[in-house]
Amino acid sequence: MYRTHNNGGLRAANIGETVTLSGWVQKSRDKGFMIWVDLRDRYGITQLIFDEERTPKDVMESARDLGREFVVQVTGEVIERESKNPKMPTGDIEILVKELKVLNSSRTPPFTIETETDGGEDLRMKYRYLDIRRNPVKEKLIFRHKVTIAVRNYLSEQGFIEVETPYLIKSTPEGARDFVVPSRMNEGQFYALPQSPQTFKQLLMVGGMDKYFQIVKCFRDEDLRADRQPEFTQIDCEMAFVEQEDILNVFEGLTKFLLKEINGVEINKFPRMTYDEAMARYGNDKPDIRFGMEFGELNEVAQHKGFNVFNNADLVVGIAIPGGAQYTRKEIDKLIDWVKRPQVGALGMVYVKCNEDGTYKSSVDKFYDDQDLAKWAEKTGAKPGDLICVLSGESQKTRAQLSALRMEMAERLGLRKADEFAPLWVVDFPLLEWDEETERYHAMHHPFTSPKPGQLEMLDSDPGAVKANAYDLVLNGNEIGGGSIRIFDSETQSTMFDHLGFTKEEAQAQFGFLMEAFKYGAPPHGGIAFGLDRLVAILGGQETIRDFIAFPKNNAGRDVMIDAPATIDDAQLKELNLKVTL
Amino acid sequence: MYRTHNNGGLRAANIGETVTLSGWVQKSRDKGFMIWVDLRDRYGITQLIFDEERTPKDVMESARDLGREFVVQVTGEVIERESKNPKMPTGDIEILVKELKVLNSSRTPPFTIETETDGGEDLRMKYRYLDIRRNPVKEKLIFRHKVTIAVRNYLSEQGFIEVETPYLIKSTPEGARDFVVPSRMNEGQFYALPQSPQTFKQLLMVGGMDKYFQIVKCFRDEDLRADRQPEFTQIDCEMAFVEQEDILNVFEGLTKFLLKEINGVEINKFPRMTYDEAMARYGNDKPDIRFGMEFGELNEVAQHKGFNVFNNADLVVGIAIPGGAQYTRKEIDKLIDWVKRPQVGALGMVYVKCNEDGTYKSSVDKFYDDQDLAKWAEKTGAKPGDLICVLSGESQKTRAQLSALRMEMAERLGLRKADEFAPLWVVDFPLLEWDEETERYHAMHHPFTSPKPGQLEMLDSDPGAVKANAYDLVLNGNEIGGGSIRIFDSETQSTMFDHLGFTKEEAQAQFGFLMEAFKYGAPPHGGIAFGLDRLVAILGGQETIRDFIAFPKNNAGRDVMIDAPATIDDAQLKELNLKVTL
Repeated sequence: MYRTHNNGGLRAANIGETVTLSGWVQKSRDKGFMIWVDLRDRYGITQLIFDEERTPKDVMESARDLGREFVVQVTGEVIERESKNPKMPTGDIEILVKELKVLNSSRTPPFTIETETDGGEDLRMKYRYLDIRRNPVKEKLIFRHKVTIAVRNYLSEQGFIEVETPYLIKSTPEGARDFVVPSRMNEGQFYALPQSPQTFKQLLMVGGMDKYFQIVKCFRDEDLRADRQPEFTQIDCEMAFVEQEDILNVFEGLTKFLLKEINGVEINKFPRMTYDEAMARYGNDKPDIRFGMEFGELNEVAQHKGFNVFNNADLVVGIAIPGGAQYTRKEIDKLIDWVKRPQVGALGMVYVKCNEDGTYKSSVDKFYDDQDLAKWAEKTGAKPGDLICVLSGESQKTRAQLSALRMEMAERLGLRKADEFAPLWVVDFPLLEWDEETERYHAMHHPFTSPKPGQLEMLDSDPGAVKANAYDLVLNGNEIGGGSIRIFDSETQSTMFDHLGFTKEEAQAQFGFLMEAFKYGAPPHGGIAFGLDRLVAILGGQETIRDFIAFPKNNAGRDVMIDAPATIDDAQLKELNLKVTL
Repeated sequence: MYRTHNNGGLRAANIGETVTLSGWVQKSRDKGFMIWVDLRDRYGITQLIFDEERTPKDVMESARDLGREFVVQVTGEVIERESKNPKMPTGDIEILVKELKVLNSSRTPPFTIETETDGGEDLRMKYRYLDIRRNPVKEKLIFRHKVTIAVRNYLSEQGFIEVETPYLIKSTPEGARDFVVPSRMNEGQFYALPQSPQTFKQLLMVGGMDKYFQIVKCFRDEDLRADRQPEFTQIDCEMAFVEQEDILNVFEGLTKFLLKEINGVEINKFPRMTYDEAMARYGNDKPDIRFGMEFGELNEVAQHKGFNVFNNADLVVGIAIPGGAQYTRKEIDKLIDWVKRPQVGALGMVYVKCNEDGTYKSSVDKFYDDQDLAKWAEKTGAKPGDLICVLSGESQKTRAQLSALRMEMAERLGLRKADEFAPLWVVDFPLLEWDEETERYHAMHHPFTSPKPGQLEMLDSDPGAVKANAYDLVLNGNEIGGGSIRIFDSETQSTMFDHLGFTKEEAQAQFGFLMEAFKYGAPPHGGIAFGLDRLVAILGGQETIRDFIAFPKNNAGRDVMIDAPATIDDAQLKELNLKVTL
């Protein structure tokens, strides 16, 4: 037996006991006649003491040779510490070592295994197994486990059944790219890895499973943006005999439960907002509502006053930055530079200082007097002391730009508090969105989403205006879940494929099995999928997901630790009837 | 809202309530003035009654058109049934229907959606979503969910952390074939799907996670034998600072818990047996010990008596079949034919009838007298009335043949009882096994398994004799789990790769990251993996796994429902820099 206790558990009550501990040498202080060693494992740190007068000579000598991250086993007596450390759970005691066994030595680690490390991102990823020894990473993985156990038990108690759906499925060109898997036994044919278990969960509903969930890996071969992973995890859910309201209630329940269980935060009722309203008020379909700075539309009060920039714009819109009136000219210029960065893309920014004395000072004083600007203040909710920032141009772009500014300012002003949680349902999403590149409409959610009742006919006359029974759950400005009520009759599904530009043959080849299934008594159904990586990160008070994933890939989709992907044997390729054409 | 109750919940106490139900039409009996419909969902069946006198006329007419598997919503009053059905939980009541809405129609299903169906395997797989509506399949999926929730909660309470390891990893030619996944972003390179998270869980131990588990899909591109799937699920576990005894205790605990929780069976202590003993006593490293028929080795008492077949054999070995003495000559001939089938491969079989009067009658009476045969009976534990069946030849093959006979006879005699559970640890497996085809030793478990202390040196002198710290958990004649204590220093690991025929370069290219990790303070560690599909099937009293998998693949690795794998677009191939060479 390697240990009688772990390194987090011994207390004053154990004084006098002989114990055996194992773990890693966190650090060692050699005072000559005495050596102290911090012994670490997953559970904590226990201080070991080697004392010339009380520790056998050979043990004392071995102790001197211990390096950082050596793995050792010690046996000794639990004694009271002379100088107690109230910050450590084990701070009242130390182990007077009698026996020491080096289980494994260690090279000097390439970065310090401490909460604050000197290791850069690349080094930490290459030696991820060392990074995981660090408290912040280890705690995040344990946190993730706690969240998934809580999710599973909650849904299970609500009557949901976790069903494993297959990973080796069929490629569907719609949407993002699939990863494909050549089949050796079916020559020249390929499986695809699922982007989500969408069709399978729908088939489970056709199969009468009624309430399904699965915590499941999904795969997308996309060019990776920052903080995206080619493999990611979803909490995938589906219910039969439900309307949108049922789904919203059930998963509001789950999210409330998590916030209470994991974060100790109680939230009574999640607010709801239509997509259109979210875009108008926040310029964003996943608004962070922990803070205000809502959009004020200024067309009515700012156009036709001789300022051509505004006159020619589809939309003139502003936000009030709390306390911004005191910004210096230089600070405001920097803000203007910020919105003009290519990542944001505004052509310029108009500002209005709302002075404490009720007067205004703007960058467009030539065109607008205090009375005009008072109206701007009213529309943006600006108070004396605030700074109104105004952007204009094509509606959608301008909203996106102002939303970026709003988020940036909230960040700078410390309004995005990690321990504050503001969930929000965004509902009534458009069914379709126009894709500039392919010059056609795409399904905004996916091709299985049902239009709002009675709007199917509008698909011909005004496709962009058709709303869907689709909803997103937003938490602190991040989409943590999204779903829809599905089409459940084969005729509507077929119509939908037509409108999305599928030929009958394509639709049949890719989704024939689903339309066939709909002919055998498909029940009304709908569902939702949560992005687990993101959900866990946000519950953990963070926005980057990488440290909540044990072995993440880098932005090139590589695992730099194991050095994958890699070339494979010619023999392997030959067996698969494949040739690399480089 | 589609329903106020499900179809399994209404009782006499609900009589008088107005309820709304939704579900599938299981069957319909039209008596003219009255129509009864069985309405089914996941939760049960509720009887609907449409009565000319009490149901609106239009509803009555719609009811007449209902076909099997139509999806309907009804509203009506819960009334007392005239003829109650005590076999159904809802058998005391029926619903007097006032409103009926057909939510979806159904074509006539290709097979009956009943417990006993007329659908063959192929048809059921093609329409798996209909098959899942059948109770036996649905119940198995729910059963699987119960097992996984129980496993997760038990391990979590024992301090295990579920960590998700990556699915897109690196190909390693050792062992079974990997499925590979071409990378678009890393031209000409491939990921591989994991055959198990073996190296990652070991890295998690190096990373100090201490106790890891994961219920995880694994992939093997093998030619499929019956009841094998290209993707399968493991309960994968690993612990640091453990010896074999620790692992056995922890996972005996898990298995005991499952047997108690899921099957209501209490088992005190699992027996243990070495591999050598299992082979000697049962000819099998996963013996079913629910019954006896242990092997009796007869070399000592059967050789050198003039019977050349036995004299020339490495091994002469028999079992006693209870009550077999009464088999007719014809029945025995059929048994002999059975062992001579190519799947078993024996050249013949000698038998001895142990008569009730203490005399013997054998097929080799020419060579052996009653005194000789009495010794055979003693060695095989045969009692009067039993039949001793004896095989001979090369030891390993003969044992396998007799084991097959033993299992077959147990099956025929009803000794393999589904509700009886006999777990067994088999320990001290050989480290290596000789592979006839490649003419070299392979790791019996995998290359990371540690040899028994002090046996590393024997790798040169007598590699086949080296025993490993490896163990299997056997349940009712099936291996449900297997694992080992791992090598945890890079030097031993490197030696092991040498003996397995890896060049230094190959070992470095494939497992360099692991050997590197071992240089930074790897702790002693070991683990186990359970085959979830098999475990669930056996706990469920079955031996075939297919119905415990929602969407299984057939023996050619195909999903016949979605028709995968399939060919992919040339554009997709081009993006991946691949060409199919058929």
